[in-house]
Order: sequence, then structure tokens, then C-alpha cells
Amino acid sequence: MAGAAATAGAFLLGEPEPPASAAPAQVVGFHGPHQAGIATPVQDRLHFAAFDVAVGTREELVALLVSWTRAAESMTAGRVSSADDSGEALDLPASRLTLTVGFGPTLFERAGEDRFGLAASRPPALADLPPFPGEKLDPARGGGDIAVQACADDPQVAVHAIRTLARIGLGRVSVRWSQLGYGKTSSTTPAQLTPRNLMGFKDGTDNIAHDDHAALDQHVWVSSADGPAWMAGGSYLVARRIRMHLESWDQVSVQEQEATIGRTKTGGAPLGGKGERDGFDPATLPADSHVRLAHPASNGGVRLLRRGYSFVDGSDTQGRIDAGLFFLAYQRDPRRQYVPVQRRLATDDRLSTYIRHVGSGLWACPPGVSPGGHWGDTLLG
Amino acid sequence: MAGAAATAGAFLLGEPEPPASAAPAQVVGFHGPHQAGIATPVQDRLHFAAFDVAVGTREELVALLVSWTRAAESMTAGRVSSADDSGEALDLPASRLTLTVGFGPTLFERAGEDRFGLAASRPPALADLPPFPGEKLDPARGGGDIAVQACADDPQVAVHAIRTLARIGLGRVSVRWSQLGYGKTSSTTPAQLTPRNLMGFKDGTDNIAHDDHAALDQHVWVSSADGPAWMAGGSYLVARRIRMHLESWDQVSVQEQEATIGRTKTGGAPLGGKGERDGFDPATLPADSHVRLAHPASNGGVRLLRRGYSFVDGSDTQGRIDAGLFFLAYQRDPRRQYVPVQRRLATDDRLSTYIRHVGSGLWACPPGVSPGGHWGDTLLG
Repeated sequence: MAGAAATAGAFLLGEPEPPASAAPAQVVGFHGPHQAGIATPVQDRLHFAAFDVAVGTREELVALLVSWTRAAESMTAGRVSSADDSGEALDLPASRLTLTVGFGPTLFERAGEDRFGLAASRPPALADLPPFPGEKLDPARGGGDIAVQACADDPQVAVHAIRTLARIGLGRVSVRWSQLGYGKTSSTTPAQLTPRNLMGFKDGTDNIAHDDHAALDQHVWVSSADGPAWMAGGSYLVARRIRMHLESWDQVSVQEQEATIGRTKTGGAPLGGKGERDGFDPATLPADSHVRLAHPASNGGVRLLRRGYSFVDGSDTQGRIDAGLFFLAYQRDPRRQYVPVQRRLATDDRLSTYIRHVGSGLWACPPGVSPGGHWGDTLLG
Repeated sequence: MAGAAATAGAFLLGEPEPPASAAPAQVVGFHGPHQAGIATPVQDRLHFAAFDVAVGTREELVALLVSWTRAAESMTAGRVSSADDSGEALDLPASRLTLTVGFGPTLFERAGEDRFGLAASRPPALADLPPFPGEKLDPARGGGDIAVQACADDPQVAVHAIRTLARIGLGRVSVRWSQLGYGKTSSTTPAQLTPRNLMGFKDGTDNIAHDDHAALDQHVWVSSADGPAWMAGGSYLVARRIRMHLESWDQVSVQEQEATIGRTKTGGAPLGGKGERDGFDPATLPADSHVRLAHPASNGGVRLLRRGYSFVDGSDTQGRIDAGLFFLAYQRDPRRQYVPVQRRLATDDRLSTYIRHVGSGLWACPPGVSPGGHWGDTLLG
């Protein structure tokens, strides 16, 4: 689609465009029963933004979402967003860009105010997350009326997409907070090498695979029986900015690290096992190890689709690296999935010593968009 | 070198390693007359850190630099840094990792104190940068006794390298500040597509090419005649964190943007010209345009080797994206190169309306290391 971008650029400025990069166009389809960017094989880079809505009426909110949808259709296809596109992605292919939208609790009701006549449509599963032991949430890195997850294999493409939506929304939305994720940590493609998080361990070995439709239906996609009807085919997103205390982690032995995680560091095998993907009984792992406590067998079969990214945001005033995992998990019902699992992890997980949750958000991601439709049309249309 | 990493990993933990990524090993040689990471074709990603030294003696400083050099030799070859490597780059190839070190003014003398007996060796060219009009420097993002520039085509490899050096230096150095650069903006490979900065313009079209040895000798490498002798083959690095006011930039027309830069947006041609690389007379560009004012012809022939990266560090409290250009420029003498050029730009450049310099640093980067030698051995050996 670099050619399409070049064409649009030429249209924009009336001059010839030199040959663009030879990289093959990589386009993830925008339309479908589910939003792209959830089951889509995880792209390398992330730019995530939580927006607060400033408009006062439902009609204005719909108009915003229609504008955003049209821009997303263009950008995910590798075309410019409009005639006055900001330009930094002009020469780049689509790079598997996906844009995924979610609606936060405050869009339905904020401080008792039914801003857009949506209070009665708020899904019971979009219940505010409870406080968890040990977290230290920064309100400047949490919440937001609308979340947009931009994933792409090129960071400039993801950054351009979020910037473009912010620009289209100028005066109608404001960016509440945003996060760059430089590298994926949770693959959904088990045939490929499992990425490592900043603790040096493989992450996401037992993640739900992008093509495991039975597991996606069971754990990720909201069914029409779940209700409300407008969420059928959608999913709930929990985001947690998890700061890692890497200086402390780096001081302990590999043996202690492996006992904390429950897997070997180099190979990623469960402790006592041989291969990363060998079956194992989590009850054989240390009682307070992360893999044992987070395992479906320890949580009534509950699973999450994880799509986390590593972040590095400079250094704090003590010279410690401000880095960790920007955890993104999709699920059918956070009340049955993220909340009970995290409650257990927050109290029992040995890993809690080395991490702190510092940002948090929860959003209802509506189903996918049909051609001619727009984000949220099952709720607002 | 993924194989080498796997071997070292197996040595580390005594278990077999699964087949690593099939990506070809991409190793930039560490040793040579000049440090790698200056003329090296610009890699895609950056992690940069400025360290303050906490040790009290010259011997301890040398010991630190020896340890760092040995780790850098390993990591740039795609091997682990040590038996207790933190591990997050274990499966990754060298990814053209380079590590480049520079010594700041405070290493030679701090508040009148000759900490390491180096005051007499301070190069005259390492004169503190003067204040420039319009800058608003954050002391928390400036200075530092030692700078380390890590560049690689994989961000995890660059992040791992800086983290490893910080870890090796624990108790001997502290990170003063650090910066992630997600994408290069200044190519030194004119045969490739010129990257775009976050203003959407091609950046670095007329940069010094990596293989233009005459220009490198004239503008980048310190000669033995320049003095001091220990800097021969080295270079001076100026870093500037340049915040872009992208919301303002996005509000003005493409015509205004092009008049501000002096080149067309889509194609990158000088205004009035046809092709990006066509020769042009800068006097034909608008008098206050960036390209005219920064052009060698407007600066007595002065050139800089630029190696800048785009950054996005979330959003500020007003919801504006904290993004811009992390400018890195190598040169033979900042007093004749960066300082006069920036003095002119700070007062006359129309682009100044849309940017602000918020961080700054200056370092003397010693020449390259010979096998068995160490960073800074011409100064400290």
C-alpha cells in the first residue's frame, strides 16, 4: 500500500513521488464481526491512547466515531488519513496496522451524570475494577472515556495513527494519557519464537493462539447470550501499566528468578520439565510462583488473551529505569477473568515483590465494523 | 550470532536452547580507529543514557571502563554480556548494535574539583554550550559525566545494552537521565529512502554519508593536529531533546509548513526544485526557512553528522503529545560547528515557533578501541 500512500501524497501536493520502500504491503482487514487488533497476531509495536470526550451530545459523539472510523479504514489500508495528513507515515506500508476502540465506564456515566443517554446500556461486565493490594495507581495514567490501541510492525505507523485520531478529534476529545510500547511481550503465534519481557523470561507461552477459535469464543468474544446485545462479538480490555523494579530483579540469582516465575529463564520450560511447550501440572511448581498462580488450572479454567508490550520511559529521579510491561488483556467478562486472577496474584504471587501496578484502565470494545458502519454503531447507531 | 547467544545461554543455565530466530547475524565490528555508532549507517532504534560517576579514584574509573568495554565487545558481537546476563536479548541477533561512549565536561572538572586528575586534559573544544535563545532546558534531562549511545535495529537489543552497562556500574555510576528513540530520522545512507521526522518531512537528505570519508575527515573526526592528542580519531557529540509542538504544527497549512522548512513535504525537493537530491541555491529559499539557515552555504561550509531519533514519551498534563526529535550530532569542534549554527537557528529560524529545546548535553567521544584496549585508554591508560 506504499503505492497508495504515494498516490494520495501526490494528489495532496501535486508533485511526483519517488519510489517508496520495497517492503511488501501488509494490510490487516478493518471490517469484520470482531475488531481487528484483538485476535490479530501481535504486531511488534504499540501506541495506546486514552481519550476523554469533550462533546456534549450523542449526535456529536457519533459524528466523532464516524470520522474516526473513516480515517481508520484509510490508515489500516496503508492510505493517508485525509488530504492534509500529517505525513510522517507517507512512505511506509500499512505495517499490519490495527486500530481497536473501547468505551470506558465514564462514557456511560460520569459522577452520576448520564452524559450521552448511555447509562442504561452499560454492560454489567464493565464494572469498575476493585482496588488490588499493592497497586499504586497514578490517576494521570488511568481511565479514559475511549481507548484506542494502535498496533503495527513499524512504530511510526502506530504513532501516526494515534496522532491522526487526536487531530481529527481536536476540540471534541482530549488525550488523557498515552503509552508507547516498543516491543511485544505476548505472542499469539505459538509457531514463532516466544518473545521475552524485560525480566528476561519468555512471556505468553500458554497465551490463547490467534487461530484457536474455540478458545477465543470461550474466553475472549462476548456472546449474544452474555448481553448486552450491542456487545455481542466484542470483548473487554483491561490495561495495566506494570512498572518492573529491574534493579532489584537484577540483584537476585537466576535460581531465585526461576522459582519466582516457575519456568526456566533460557528455555522457558516449566520447572522440572524439559521443553517450553511440554504439558505440566502447575501443582508441581512452587506454591507462590507466578506461572502456577496464573495458570488456568489454578483459576477454574479462566484464561485471558494477553497482548502486552514492554515500555521504557526514561529514568526516575533516583536514576532507576522507568520500564516494565504495559499489560493488555482481552476477555469475555473481567468479573470472572481478570479480577479474580489478579486478586490472587496481588496477594500470593512472589513476583509481586518485583513489580508495581501504576496505571489501570477498563474498556468495553464493541464488535467489529461492517462496511459503511462505524465504531460503536451497535451501541449508538 | 543468535547461535552464539544460544550457546552462552546454554552455558548459563545448563539446558538445551530451542532454535533461535532465523534472522541473519548482523554484527558491526567494535574495534577500530573510530568508535562504531558514529559513521555506522544509522540503525532503526536508540536507547541513550547519561551517567554520573560515583567512584572517587582514577583507578576505579578505569576499572569501570574496562568492564564496560568487555561487556560491549560481547554484546555488539551478539553474545551475552556475562554468565548472569539479564536475558531479555538472549534469542535476538546482534541487530547491528553499536555502543558509543562520550565524556562530559563534569568528568574533567566539576564545580572546580579535579575529580580524576583530568582537568588539564579537557579539550578546549569541550567548552560548555552557551545558552541559546528560546531554549527551556530541564536540568533533569541534561549533562552527565559519561554518555552511552546504544543503537540497534531491534529496540530490545539497545535497551538491554544500556541496562547491562547500568547494572555492571551499580554503585559506581548512576543513570542521570535516559531517552528511548523509537525511530531514526537522519539517515546516512543516501541510496535508501530518507526517513521522515514527526513533522512529516524527510530529514537528513543532505546529511554526511557514512562512506564519505573526505567529509568525515573534514567535519566529524578530530585530527591529530586539532589536539589534544588523546582525542585524535574521536568526535564531539551534541545531544538536544527537541520537543515539537505538533498540535500547533498540525494546524497550519502544508504551504506554511513547506515555507518553514524550505522543502516540499511529500517529495522533499527544495522549494522551486524538482527532486529531493537536486542541487539548489539556498539563497532562493525563504530567508527564514530552516533548510536555508542550516545549509552549509549559510554557515561557512560547516556540516554536522546527524543521527537523530524520533521520540514519544506519552502526554503532558494538557494532553499534548510529549514527542519530537532527540537530536544527536557528531562533529570535529562544536565551537565552530554546532554552536554558531544553532545560534543562528535559535534567533532566525521560522521553525523555532514550532519547537523547543528542553534537554542538552555535550561529550567528547574518544577514538575507537583496539583489541585488548578499553574506552578512554588514550585519556586514562
